[in-house]
Amino acid sequence: MSKFPVLEIFGPTIQGEGMVVGRKTMFVRTAGCDYSCAWCDSAFTWDGSAKDEIERLTADEIVNRLLETGGRHFDHVTISGGNPALLAKLDELIEPLHARGIEVALETQGSRWQDWFPEIDDLTISPKPPSSKMNTNWQVLDDIIERLLERGRLANVSLKVVVFNDEDLTYAERVHERYPDVPFFLQVGNDDLEEDAPPALASHLLDQYEWLIDQVVASEKLNHVRVLPQVHALVWGNKRGV
Amino acid sequence: MSKFPVLEIFGPTIQGEGMVVGRKTMFVRTAGCDYSCAWCDSAFTWDGSAKDEIERLTADEIVNRLLETGGRHFDHVTISGGNPALLAKLDELIEPLHARGIEVALETQGSRWQDWFPEIDDLTISPKPPSSKMNTNWQVLDDIIERLLERGRLANVSLKVVVFNDEDLTYAERVHERYPDVPFFLQVGNDDLEEDAPPALASHLLDQYEWLIDQVVASEKLNHVRVLPQVHALVWGNKRGV
Ligand code: SF4
Ligand code: SF4
Repeated sequence: MSKFPVLEIFGPTIQGEGMVVGRKTMFVRTAGCDYSCAWCDSAFTWDGSAKDEIERLTADEIVNRLLETGGRHFDHVTISGGNPALLAKLDELIEPLHARGIEVALETQGSRWQDWFPEIDDLTISPKPPSSKMNTNWQVLDDIIERLLERGRLANVSLKVVVFNDEDLTYAERVHERYPDVPFFLQVGNDDLEEDAPPALASHLLDQYEWLIDQVVASEKLNHVRVLPQVHALVWGNKRGV
Repeated sequence: MSKFPVLEIFGPTIQGEGMVVGRKTMFVRTAGCDYSCAWCDSAFTWDGSAKDEIERLTADEIVNRLLETGGRHFDHVTISGGNPALLAKLDELIEPLHARGIEVALETQGSRWQDWFPEIDDLTISPKPPSSKMNTNWQVLDDIIERLLERGRLANVSLKVVVFNDEDLTYAERVHERYPDVPFFLQVGNDDLEEDAPPALASHLLDQYEWLIDQVVASEKLNHVRVLPQVHALVWGNKRGV
């Protein structure tokens, strides 16, 4: 059995963003990322700062930990990172969860394909806009989207672009125009990872959210879209493990 | 051609709640309701206070008004009320919108069936909990859900229960247990319709939202669910027409 690098297992709580925002879920956060986004809100998964907290667990151990922590209070698990799409054998975890009637969500930036992508119930592909300082490999992204569409996964997939500024918005338009059939989400960026007081952060993020709504309303290229805040950041601020 | 009682046509803006929260959309608000919920946030649609603003418009006139107001900036229309399910001929509006490639969402409390329900792309059935002081007619609701399931509309339908207190939460559990296959949303009630300052209201609503998340996390009966705030109320407070 493979071992997976795990940083956090927590919940139940709610999914704070994207295609199943509000969904009652458990979280498994894996370590490691092939990107280093300027504004990464989980840099501890790859910058070495939490390396002593990484456990190497088998799928069975992860499932047991989920059941110990969540009891009979969940039927959905979100695998986040870092980039969990670095883990080639993740089907070893997805399958026993499905066998227990547990749905699985996963988010990745779309930098590489894995054969288990079509098994994910709620798969968010979140390519990174210019403010991240990362470069999108469009060929890889085209290939991922094409394979998912070929397999009829449209109802289980979405694209999500985080927007901090006008340049990011133009990038979002470009992504949506390139893959017009894929459910498309725009998300407010959290540009204040240092703010510890949830009410102050919420007020700032709601201003940013209103700005993003205004931009999307004004764009003829962004009609078939959804615009969301990160609701967990509104409630809990930048706190980890909630 | 039928005439429909219309109170507001506005947008584009975003849908603030429920199954397509964040969706860029236009709104058509119809007048009239067969309920009178204690905490109705659109009582002006039925309490007579806005009766001079009601226009009687044909479907063509509504479509024209939508196109004048929204231009090329929308592909989705939300019909809200009041209870738009009082309008037997609403297919006269739904069909020309579909013919233009425009999707249609609608919310009703589920107090009566209409034959055009299966034509709605995003249909929210929102039975009212005890705090509303209304009584649910379970026979009618059973019949509505059964007809929608028979017609294979599962992907286009959701149930939504607004929760103000513990009694409402028990009611929500009952609704979810009765219709376990229908996507289920819990929503924070807005108990402060007088508050005009959006930041003060947002802070209060986020506290209520956190309370609701805690209750849902603790309930074994509410696993396959989503818990959401009203994001428009977080951004704009109780303002109309946004
Ligand atoms: S892809 Fe995600 S986890 Fe990786 S650096 Fe960027 S934001 Fe952080
Ligand atoms: S059903 Fe809706 S519109 Fe009618 S009174 Fe209740 S909350 Fe208001």
